[in-house]
Amino acid sequence: MEPTPVLWTFKASPFAGKARAAFLEKGVPVELAEIHPVERPKRFLGLTAPGRVPVLEPGGGAPPIRESSIICEWLEETHPEPALWPADPAVRGWARGQARFVDDLLTANFFLGMRKQAFGRSPSDPEDVVDRLHRQLAKHWPALEAALGAHEGPWLCGGQFTFADLSALPLAVRLPEWAPHLVPDADAFPRVTTWFAALRDRPSAAAIDQAGKRVSA
Amino acid sequence: MEPTPVLWTFKASPFAGKARAAFLEKGVPVELAEIHPVERPKRFLGLTAPGRVPVLEPGGGAPPIRESSIICEWLEETHPEPALWPADPAVRGWARGQARFVDDLLTANFFLGMRKQAFGRSPSDPEDVVDRLHRQLAKHWPALEAALGAHEGPWLCGGQFTFADLSALPLAVRLPEWAPHLVPDADAFPRVTTWFAALRDRPSAAAIDQAGKRVSA
Repeated sequence: MEPTPVLWTFKASPFAGKARAAFLEKGVPVELAEIHPVERPKRFLGLTAPGRVPVLEPGGGAPPIRESSIICEWLEETHPEPALWPADPAVRGWARGQARFVDDLLTANFFLGMRKQAFGRSPSDPEDVVDRLHRQLAKHWPALEAALGAHEGPWLCGGQFTFADLSALPLAVRLPEWAPHLVPDADAFPRVTTWFAALRDRPSAAAIDQAGKRVSA
Repeated sequence: MEPTPVLWTFKASPFAGKARAAFLEKGVPVELAEIHPVERPKRFLGLTAPGRVPVLEPGGGAPPIRESSIICEWLEETHPEPALWPADPAVRGWARGQARFVDDLLTANFFLGMRKQAFGRSPSDPEDVVDRLHRQLAKHWPALEAALGAHEGPWLCGGQFTFADLSALPLAVRLPEWAPHLVPDADAFPRVTTWFAALRDRPSAAAIDQAGKRVSA
């Protein structure tokens, strides 16, 4: 029998949420090990250098795999069905670029801003750091709208749901819940609006609220 | 005949340098289109949202592919030989995590620090921003030394040279040239020292100094 992999996770982390949703989309069983982000367990810190969730222990003595996109690549390679990347390498490359754009320029800015709003800014941050981070979202909506226009939809690559769509799931769920004033205008960004709604309708959206079994040592 | 892909590049960019080196390692012909990082040509800006090098146009009407690691994945999928990822998916996942660690925590901090030293800091940067960025290097040498101890060497995954090694090529070349005081101590970090020297000995190290044909409009 295949060993059940362990995914180290933190409920509020968007990248951990994306990895949890990827397991649901693939229908692959996984055990969730929940950490506290400030008091991280020693066993977790020993796994990877930066010590950030998500980290996957595939099981069977295999080395730990860090970073949500890389965990998605492992899932695709070990559980090819349903395929969550386009079959054509060039379209796949384009889609991976879109996923990275969402991760680095939308998700990271939004959730880092929310974290600084909730827990305070660092001493070296400018006073308006939250606004600065959140202004990045507004700046990038036009590019996202354009990317969604490259295919017929409903997904970024057309009819096939891919990891590029999955990347935006944490944002689609949390943006209206946590910061309705930052939700893009439906008239100006109709494709983004429809896409976010379709993402929230995926059964895997439940993963964004999923917590694992707390590990404390 | 296969179309010759076009790689948009900037000589001093470490991530463009990594992509150039990947083409050399694969023995795949590529046309280099050189941009000026401040006066970026319109045609280049129209290709991808963030407008950062490297960007690959695979040719034959295929969509553009952004980000150095994603360009490496495209190369591996379209030109499997020589294989630059380990065959085992779990080891490959571990290796991708190491590549990302080098990109995000070593290369990005070092080169961003050098850029701010050369061209000045942003108004929102703390006064000691260059030192802050460069202190990150010293902080992460122990983790890199440990990662290099996971296999016999000479490379991160053992006998096989992979994209995880390639990620560190720009750093291995530029660190002693541009900032000898930041080179890790050979007694404290013998594996890092030997690895950096082996990287500088690869024929693909020449790619770090490679400039393309300047495109200005």
